Amino acid sequence: MTKPLKVALLGCGTVGSAVLRLISEQADDLTARVGRPVEVAGIAVRRPAHHPDVPQHLLTTDAEALVARDDVDLVVEVIGGIEPARTLILAALEAGKSVVSANKALLADDGPLLHAAAAKAGVDLYYEAAVAGAIPLLRPLRESLAGDQLRRVVGIVNGTTNYILSRMAETGAGFAEALAEATDLGYAEADPTADIDGFDAAAKAAILASLAFHTPVSAIDVYREGISAVSASDVARAAEIGCTVKLLAICERVENGNEDGDSVAVRVHPAMIPTTHPLASVGGAFNAVYVEAEAAGQLMFYGQGAGGEPTASAVLGDLVAVARNRLAGASGQGPTGYANLAVRPIADTPTRYHVSLDVADRPGVLATVAHEFARHEVSIATVRQDGHGDAATLVIVTHSAPDAALSATIAALRDMPVVRGVTSVLRVEGLS
Amino acid sequence: MTKPLKVALLGCGTVGSAVLRLISEQADDLTARVGRPVEVAGIAVRRPAHHPDVPQHLLTTDAEALVARDDVDLVVEVIGGIEPARTLILAALEAGKSVVSANKALLADDGPLLHAAAAKAGVDLYYEAAVAGAIPLLRPLRESLAGDQLRRVVGIVNGTTNYILSRMAETGAGFAEALAEATDLGYAEADPTADIDGFDAAAKAAILASLAFHTPVSAIDVYREGISAVSASDVARAAEIGCTVKLLAICERVENGNEDGDSVAVRVHPAMIPTTHPLASVGGAFNAVYVEAEAAGQLMFYGQGAGGEPTASAVLGDLVAVARNRLAGASGQGPTGYANLAVRPIADTPTRYHVSLDVADRPGVLATVAHEFARHEVSIATVRQDGHGDAATLVIVTHSAPDAALSATIAALRDMPVVRGVTSVLRVEGLS
Repeated sequence: MTKPLKVALLGCGTVGSAVLRLISEQADDLTARVGRPVEVAGIAVRRPAHHPDVPQHLLTTDAEALVARDDVDLVVEVIGGIEPARTLILAALEAGKSVVSANKALLADDGPLLHAAAAKAGVDLYYEAAVAGAIPLLRPLRESLAGDQLRRVVGIVNGTTNYILSRMAETGAGFAEALAEATDLGYAEADPTADIDGFDAAAKAAILASLAFHTPVSAIDVYREGISAVSASDVARAAEIGCTVKLLAICERVENGNEDGDSVAVRVHPAMIPTTHPLASVGGAFNAVYVEAEAAGQLMFYGQGAGGEPTASAVLGDLVAVARNRLAGASGQGPTGYANLAVRPIADTPTRYHVSLDVADRPGVLATVAHEFARHEVSIATVRQDGHGDAATLVIVTHSAPDAALSATIAALRDMPVVRGVTSVLRVEGLS
Repeated sequence: MTKPLKVALLGCGTVGSAVLRLISEQADDLTARVGRPVEVAGIAVRRPAHHPDVPQHLLTTDAEALVARDDVDLVVEVIGGIEPARTLILAALEAGKSVVSANKALLADDGPLLHAAAAKAGVDLYYEAAVAGAIPLLRPLRESLAGDQLRRVVGIVNGTTNYILSRMAETGAGFAEALAEATDLGYAEADPTADIDGFDAAAKAAILASLAFHTPVSAIDVYREGISAVSASDVARAAEIGCTVKLLAICERVENGNEDGDSVAVRVHPAMIPTTHPLASVGGAFNAVYVEAEAAGQLMFYGQGAGGEPTASAVLGDLVAVARNRLAGASGQGPTGYANLAVRPIADTPTRYHVSLDVADRPGVLATVAHEFARHEVSIATVRQDGHGDAATLVIVTHSAPDAALSATIAALRDMPVVRGVTSVLRVEGLS
């Protein structure tokens, strides 16, 4: 009864060292909650000399051997990246050891393969920490809402881009200036590509969509635009129509009309959302995920999306669950892919656009512009025209239309002689 | 493999009929998620004639016999109230049948007894729907945060009072007027006592505190004040200091200083919170629960706290979980009471107060008033004095002090000759 459960910790960076500290500090509580002590059997790192603060006898450079050790019951993977994490996790699962991972990139790329390995071995693969850090999100989607039908999951799941966009809104700064500030303050990494180009958010979107719609979705299925093209003008135009600009990860179930079955649209791009939307006030480095379900209605989950301690909290929650399952000889509720819905390309996905145009202020211009929208079967929801001298500003918000029709409309507008400039184009979400 | 799991549904009011409809509408999805079909074996109601829309052959007035039927695997209790729900749930658990309940009053009164019965029989007792309706909250507290230490759980968990307070803030109306409006619109029941006097919120606070702190807490342990004494003046004074008034359910871990171990303080009362607090913008009939944990930091959960469909969504999520556990021959993670912390009386609980006073505007009055606070060892955080003629208004916000010291200070102020009137007294939460 008191034989401890032994954990192999793979990786000991910011998250790994926080996991190590929490396991030690909360030893008594973990014992009570799991039913047995939980002990770290070993810590696999690349350079032991870089880890002077951890018990040296636990360190090893041979992660494979650590995972394979007979006395290791559970594996926590916080290395990140595809390899060697993938090989190590597969080896652990095949050896009948449940795995807790924080690895969004790997889960988004290879989720089905890893889940199949876990299911085959009858063990658990949990990864709450992979999306939105400390926010309990995957478990609620997978379990709490298991009796409901999800319609949409819309998240602010990348703190770096949210910090940058928040600062642009607060200070009027351009993207480059706000990025430089984020880098100085440590909110952006030296190479911020994964964040600002939306790769990080796209991986999380794939994981969320897979769980929400019981459908395998990989990172490559996700349409992705980053925030580097968002201008101070976009942010200012958003404020003028009562909106704010956020980088959103959007997972939607789309009705296919006369075709068979529904499909799933998964996309990451900057969008204007009304300041009254629950996501609009999520500032700085916080994350939040908004969920719409048939019966439950609107839900929102909010908290810290990154950082060693918050991520470690999610890892430990999973560790308690897989430890309890192991003691009970059971495995928890994994994701299911039974629905296997088609993933809809962005071109066919219904979206809405905001467009600000500088046009010549003379009779017939509005009619010409409006005709271009109509020609692409895009319906206009609101239009505002402000004249100033011989020029005018046109601000148009469309109704929902296939994204391809909207982008074709914008391309056509750019070529029209009466349009002197397109000053802002952004998708709009959350307007009624 | 295709033998269905059979469910006894106890009660068929707003929630029960929504549960019945969802089980039928989502039959295919439930089968895929559970691994077997889920069927309703019978529905226990008091007056079958009142339920013309449900399959008549399923109706019975003999709930006890339904629960005892050999072919019934699982029991869903949505009757509410203490009896007969308590007897029926105990009978089900003792017969080895897992139970899903939405019964906050019963769980808050008799949680430990019911959990003991479930543990003894090795079956599940789940009740996500009992607190904050559709919001996944109990499962995240119990499981996702199982590797963390919770500091505070602060919730807006009663939609009726939140609607009334929201309307008072929007319109300047008094309590009676806003209550009348809520009653007209169906947001308040004909007898609104359970809501406006805080009994409903106190039951939910007891359940939240039990889970958050691994300590049995009953409704009678919860300090409780309702909102009927909140005046239009309180709401106006709150706005003046950048706050809004909410009825809060507050569960806190309190360090005991030089005594042994920590204790738990659980209370329900109206309070001023800063308009910048994540809970401040939760309006109307919505619920939200704010959580502070050592490692995870700040979290918030937001959604619909009541209504047939949202509550049924939570019931079905639990139903899928207990059905899967039954098929796996396992039981899920129940609450634990191992920490068994002392419940701290309100008198010893540290709180902060806002007080608005009408005083005589002459030399020495502020000193006299300040002395009264000091005499009770209450430290003043901010004070604002506005003179008008021979009278002045004093607005004082204290630092944290034992609630008894604060209420004794207020009582003493009321008796002071220089104090012409105490125009508003409310606790303050969430100020830094």
